[in-house]
Amino acid sequence: MMDRREFSQAAVAGTLAATLLGQLARAQNGASPIHVTALIHDNMVMMDLVGPLTVFNLLRADINLVSQTGAAVSTEVGIPVAPTASYASATRETDVLFVPGGLAGTVAEISNPATRSFLAETGENAQWVTSVCTGSLLLGAAGLLRGYSATSHWYVRDLLELSGAEVADGRVVEDRNRITGGGVTAGLDFALRIAARLRSEEVAKTIQLVLEYDPQPPFAAGSPAQAGAALTQSVLERRSPVIEQARDALQALSQ
Amino acid sequence: MMDRREFSQAAVAGTLAATLLGQLARAQNGASPIHVTALIHDNMVMMDLVGPLTVFNLLRADINLVSQTGAAVSTEVGIPVAPTASYASATRETDVLFVPGGLAGTVAEISNPATRSFLAETGENAQWVTSVCTGSLLLGAAGLLRGYSATSHWYVRDLLELSGAEVADGRVVEDRNRITGGGVTAGLDFALRIAARLRSEEVAKTIQLVLEYDPQPPFAAGSPAQAGAALTQSVLERRSPVIEQARDALQALSQ
Repeated sequence: MMDRREFSQAAVAGTLAATLLGQLARAQNGASPIHVTALIHDNMVMMDLVGPLTVFNLLRADINLVSQTGAAVSTEVGIPVAPTASYASATRETDVLFVPGGLAGTVAEISNPATRSFLAETGENAQWVTSVCTGSLLLGAAGLLRGYSATSHWYVRDLLELSGAEVADGRVVEDRNRITGGGVTAGLDFALRIAARLRSEEVAKTIQLVLEYDPQPPFAAGSPAQAGAALTQSVLERRSPVIEQARDALQALSQ
Repeated sequence: MMDRREFSQAAVAGTLAATLLGQLARAQNGASPIHVTALIHDNMVMMDLVGPLTVFNLLRADINLVSQTGAAVSTEVGIPVAPTASYASATRETDVLFVPGGLAGTVAEISNPATRSFLAETGENAQWVTSVCTGSLLLGAAGLLRGYSATSHWYVRDLLELSGAEVADGRVVEDRNRITGGGVTAGLDFALRIAARLRSEEVAKTIQLVLEYDPQPPFAAGSPAQAGAALTQSVLERRSPVIEQARDALQALSQ
């Protein structure tokens, strides 16, 4: 138990992480801080970043958010995210390379050689090379998934084979040091898996309890199989133009 | 299907919401925009806000983020959130009043008369009065849960009775126009329920599919019952000082 003075300090630090720090520290005792490098880019889907970031934060990770120029990036919900480094200033040494998605933004970055180079250089030495949602298309574009099983958002998953990956059908797919998650909300399942790999199952379960992650979706429509053909087809039709742009961008790289 | 020019415009607008806008528009046809007022405060848990915001955004809601002074607020993951209005400038007319949590921040706002007044004035006329995580303690402090069933993060749920609420045991609890969610990750289940209430089950299911919300937690530890007594006790012990501060703050109001 913290005493009142310790509690006040934690309250000033002001975070869920701070007040849990002692508890998780016991389980993480003696472990060196985990370094996470997260690529952030314009038109990112905020949830792709925030789900995993919430877990990394509870792991007391040293989190670096890296954008190309060092300028804040836009997100689909309208909340900008400021980076801690640019491609020029960021270290290429990290334990976890993490790439969130957001299809429109991913398409733009597939065709951005600076982004592909940054990912290739950082992924080469990272202990774990990871993504959520369409972020795996970017890992593929950077040459980091060739010969690995991987997944992505269900509506672009098949595009991974254009980068030499083996398309896998799973919410979180782990192949050696590559861990890729499915669309948007898969970020939590993904991050808890990483917490267990990097620390322990006990730490992951503690975080799950603190986040009350006992999901109870009110409907069964979170995958094409559950949603059925009609709803799936309507989403695919509407997303088709940007999916085709992603296909074109990846094909251009493989020629 | 959008043509290429329409797609380019959507890509410039740059958001998942934009590219889905047409599809959801069909299902939402003729409906007036939903106005959401979300209270934001220092030491907010980012995920409490972002889960629901992701869904509200796909509903093409008119989202107002309101902080006391109009200054950006801090979050536990270190990404500040800028408001669109202050208590002084924000309208009290809204369809959905939404309060995210974060225990340290919630404790501070329980004792803040300006926050309680803003919530009471806005909640009085709102079509729906809602919260996720410890946000319900704030609704209670503002007098908005007296005589209603409600829930909160599992570790403070029992404190709701100090505000005259009936403590309910559920991930999302609906009682007349009050909808409260459990801790942190309950925000998605909560927001899909609201999407169905405000629009239709078809719209909610479409959003669920787009977000690939087919949760598969790697462990079963998201509730005290699943996590077991030892893990639950260790979290409670560590959180006890700030839980007691919340109890003291709520008791001071009820005297």
